[in-house]
Amino acid sequence: MKPIFYFLISLLSLNAFSQIERVEPPNWWVGFEGSSLQLMVYGENIGKATPSLDYSGVTIKKVNQADSPNYLFLDLNISNEARPGTFDLTFKMPDGSAETYEYELKARTKPAEDYIGFDNTDAIYLITPDRFANGDTSNDTDKSLNEKTIDRSDDYARHGGDIRGIIDHLDYIDKMGFTALWSSPLLINDMKSGSYHGYAMTDFYRVDPRFGTLEEYKELADKAEKRGIKLIMDQIANHAGVEHWWMDDLPFSDWINYQELYENGEKIIYSNHKRTTNQDLYASEFDKKQMNDGWFVDTMPDLNQRNPFMAKYLIQNSIWWIETLGLGGIRQDTYPYPDKEFMSNWAGAIMSEYPNFNIVGEEWSNNPLLIRYWQDGVDNGYDSNLKSTMDFAMQSKIVEGLNEDSGWEKGLHKLYAGLSNDFAYASPENIMIFPDNHDMSRIYTQLREDIPNTKMALSYLLVLPRIPQIYYGTEILMDDTENPGDHGLIRTEFPGGWEDSEANAFTGEGLTEEQKDMQSFLKTILNYRKDSEAIQNGKTIHFAPENEVYLISRISEKEKVVLILNKNDETIELDLERFQELGLQGSSKKNLISGEKIQWGNTLTLSERGAYFFTTKLN
Amino acid sequence: MKPIFYFLISLLSLNAFSQIERVEPPNWWVGFEGSSLQLMVYGENIGKATPSLDYSGVTIKKVNQADSPNYLFLDLNISNEARPGTFDLTFKMPDGSAETYEYELKARTKPAEDYIGFDNTDAIYLITPDRFANGDTSNDTDKSLNEKTIDRSDDYARHGGDIRGIIDHLDYIDKMGFTALWSSPLLINDMKSGSYHGYAMTDFYRVDPRFGTLEEYKELADKAEKRGIKLIMDQIANHAGVEHWWMDDLPFSDWINYQELYENGEKIIYSNHKRTTNQDLYASEFDKKQMNDGWFVDTMPDLNQRNPFMAKYLIQNSIWWIETLGLGGIRQDTYPYPDKEFMSNWAGAIMSEYPNFNIVGEEWSNNPLLIRYWQDGVDNGYDSNLKSTMDFAMQSKIVEGLNEDSGWEKGLHKLYAGLSNDFAYASPENIMIFPDNHDMSRIYTQLREDIPNTKMALSYLLVLPRIPQIYYGTEILMDDTENPGDHGLIRTEFPGGWEDSEANAFTGEGLTEEQKDMQSFLKTILNYRKDSEAIQNGKTIHFAPENEVYLISRISEKEKVVLILNKNDETIELDLERFQELGLQGSSKKNLISGEKIQWGNTLTLSERGAYFFTTKLN
Repeated sequence: MKPIFYFLISLLSLNAFSQIERVEPPNWWVGFEGSSLQLMVYGENIGKATPSLDYSGVTIKKVNQADSPNYLFLDLNISNEARPGTFDLTFKMPDGSAETYEYELKARTKPAEDYIGFDNTDAIYLITPDRFANGDTSNDTDKSLNEKTIDRSDDYARHGGDIRGIIDHLDYIDKMGFTALWSSPLLINDMKSGSYHGYAMTDFYRVDPRFGTLEEYKELADKAEKRGIKLIMDQIANHAGVEHWWMDDLPFSDWINYQELYENGEKIIYSNHKRTTNQDLYASEFDKKQMNDGWFVDTMPDLNQRNPFMAKYLIQNSIWWIETLGLGGIRQDTYPYPDKEFMSNWAGAIMSEYPNFNIVGEEWSNNPLLIRYWQDGVDNGYDSNLKSTMDFAMQSKIVEGLNEDSGWEKGLHKLYAGLSNDFAYASPENIMIFPDNHDMSRIYTQLREDIPNTKMALSYLLVLPRIPQIYYGTEILMDDTENPGDHGLIRTEFPGGWEDSEANAFTGEGLTEEQKDMQSFLKTILNYRKDSEAIQNGKTIHFAPENEVYLISRISEKEKVVLILNKNDETIELDLERFQELGLQGSSKKNLISGEKIQWGNTLTLSERGAYFFTTKLN
Repeated sequence: MKPIFYFLISLLSLNAFSQIERVEPPNWWVGFEGSSLQLMVYGENIGKATPSLDYSGVTIKKVNQADSPNYLFLDLNISNEARPGTFDLTFKMPDGSAETYEYELKARTKPAEDYIGFDNTDAIYLITPDRFANGDTSNDTDKSLNEKTIDRSDDYARHGGDIRGIIDHLDYIDKMGFTALWSSPLLINDMKSGSYHGYAMTDFYRVDPRFGTLEEYKELADKAEKRGIKLIMDQIANHAGVEHWWMDDLPFSDWINYQELYENGEKIIYSNHKRTTNQDLYASEFDKKQMNDGWFVDTMPDLNQRNPFMAKYLIQNSIWWIETLGLGGIRQDTYPYPDKEFMSNWAGAIMSEYPNFNIVGEEWSNNPLLIRYWQDGVDNGYDSNLKSTMDFAMQSKIVEGLNEDSGWEKGLHKLYAGLSNDFAYASPENIMIFPDNHDMSRIYTQLREDIPNTKMALSYLLVLPRIPQIYYGTEILMDDTENPGDHGLIRTEFPGGWEDSEANAFTGEGLTEEQKDMQSFLKTILNYRKDSEAIQNGKTIHFAPENEVYLISRISEKEKVVLILNKNDETIELDLERFQELGLQGSSKKNLISGEKIQWGNTLTLSERGAYFFTTKLN
């Protein structure tokens, strides 16, 4: 990642000499739709320099000075004629001295259309990399960084998990039936403490050395791609970590929000987290500003995407990572917090370069109106360009409905009524569904450690017209029951990821029978789902729950999948007459979990509370 | 209402002779947009007759026989040339005998554009007529009807309230500040019991004699109109009462849903009340049918609006009442239950005849997606033609938010967040808001008999960009605390409506201080609202609640209204800096309730829990 420097030493004015510390993006490519590239050049007094270059097809359109004398922003034009190669950027100082920087334009490695984003044919495995597997103990600490230790006894300290650990276990992820991998951020968080989670980036172009190197990140991407696993990168346009390298020398006076307060050491204004101000017709200007400009927390400066240089910086950064890693998607953090016009431009820029790509934005809301609002394709005065949103609404309905007794609009009815809101979405099948994630109590804990309920939740969301996401450890009933919602506890070490783990979820060694059973349950459904035309593209038909039984089916031309959720503890005979329109009468169906075959007749015996997953494929 | 019969007695075949019992609509008008009129003619063996008429501009386009021999449906064309007047419909029987029926085409009394529907400049008073005031004791019972008694000790029996009682107290309603009046149905419910509520109609063209006569209904309409009070009629297209006159001789085999079961005396299928099947992309055909075709309850046959004669019957019936009474609106019961394509046609037909009319449909749902769905003007694949829907969502948020302590997304935040959903509505200002209604526990009971909370709820909904509706008795704190939700109890007699009432809410006599205070509170706000440009058409700005204080303002060019809801029991000093954008600094504002004037400075002292209602009008 280190740029190569060429020095032309001026004998006359040594103190005016600029040593270029950074040029970002560190390289670019030829062959994009967009022909413009804006380079951020950082070095002492570089703002006074006159830049030039000589390369066929590449011109400097504009040179932009910043408020800080140590930045220059160069607008380049890269025409269709430009070929891959390197060229010198020359910076001439007022005193006649000059410096050059070798910049590379690479060839693109695959056509833009081949960047296929995750979609509802996929199932996503979400990993907190510090806690999944420690594949390389040599990178556990880095004495050049602010946080110098690991402490596995502390849930909020670093534990040593890394990219190598993920690479080592791609085979496990693959065999479990996952086809996409979302790791929470792997870029450097050189923070003083508590940044194992990765959401306080201090350099948008550098992999955290405790997670590995850029080469290892590329290796992960390549090896995942070979297995048909799409790699999803977790990005954050809203904020950085307060230890970000530019915080001591911000290019513009409006590079971050409430910059004056920060620079004067005054009390920072935090976001009011009233995300509805993004839509609210009546929101006060005061609340809107506090929502979008307030800092997320005090260690995370809020980036000002209304500064056009910041906007370009973030957009180019995303494209750089997509192109560098051959990504299969981006998960964008805290979607409603940045300036929403910027987010539209950001997503639009990416989608126009990569038409088959996918981005999912995090809007933590149980309100379907908001899930609807952010997804591209609805006519609501905001063109989001965002293909995928997150279904916190259904997540909560599933948990509430399974936990509570039945009643009018209660119990399983909550799942049924929740799903009926799909009519309001531009494309429900592009919405991500999940039993939990890295910021929520574990599903097993949410469902009060009830295994049938956990199986019902998981099987249900795996048959929905959605993109399912499962958090690592769900398959072995990881919990946070001891202190529900505690982030550090939620993100517990995955057994088998450390040499001294007491059990090993990769091999099954030391797992309880219940853990093995859940692992096998999920593996069976995930692997079935992978090739299921009915689940991926079939018609959905569901029936209003009655007597604690809820049936949902997915039907394609050659395949029928029926999932029955049964909350009755005693054996019941389910009358099948209501379900006649599914055309199942007389057919033989396989219970996917038990392997048993049954005849679909007039009634069906349900002898246990839990999920019944039946399938038929026609030849 | 009795048609005049002319008999031409045939001497030859007396037993084939038809005596026409009904022609419906009982009259019609010239000058409608639509030129077609379908007459339902009912009489013994009328189906065999050949009808004819001779009137300039009027022709019989088609004669439709029914499944029952005792009906004929005549399609008339009424051209622009037709003048008001009467003409003979002549029915010739196969045996040569004939009968004539004099039919009247009236002149319209006012232009179609002058039927101005209720809107957000109005405040609606909702009345249960049996329980509001007994103005005419001579009509309390009618021995020709099934239910022959009144019993004021029984909350589910008739109490004697009537149209005369409403007419007598129009002055009260007017002075309270209401500008629209919605009475629950006044048409005949000749049921065996429990039909005091009026929702089981047994003749769609007849006023219940216990409520009065058609002439009295017209008198009410006229007197209301003179005071500028819009009369809203409560109609039901979904069902009738099981004692409806046609139930013994249904015209078609598909006149009502599940007609076979009814005719064979078999067990009726009830609606599953899964109203979401109207929108749900995945609803089973089984559930959809049961929702829409199932009977609401066993005493209310479900009308089949897919039968084109039924559809026309209902549309013409609505138009007949609008034109006869000069209505200012319709409230349509159980909106999601009838066939929804019919409801679109029904509302469309009315709105195309009366472009400035208004209809509000009852969809009892707390889900804003559904409130949104039914309102005209959203692009959701269903053209509802329905201008107004009901805001059960906000109603429940107001109650929840006021009842509960504050917290993340709790307390006053629920009101704030609920209102922020307005972005999703085609026209929030056309949505009806209410603290309660005739089917819900009284607001005073819902708010645990807490007066400050009740005042906050009422003042809040009266400043919203909505059409407010208040149920009779709210102004004097009527409650159902003894048995919350009990319909009969909710619909308690209004004090002063009966000669022997212990108190009199019309005069104030016998009311407690608390009742008088609430009555005056509502009267003050309603009368202010009547002429408030800011509340009716102003911009809305609200601020996220902080420290149990929520401020909402309505601002027009010349007027500013500020409502502060304060849940603090102790005196607080409210810092006004946050609200700077409202431009109130230094202005003098009037506390509408206390009459006090205050200067809007840097802080405001809130010494009591409750609603603070400030106004300024510029000259």
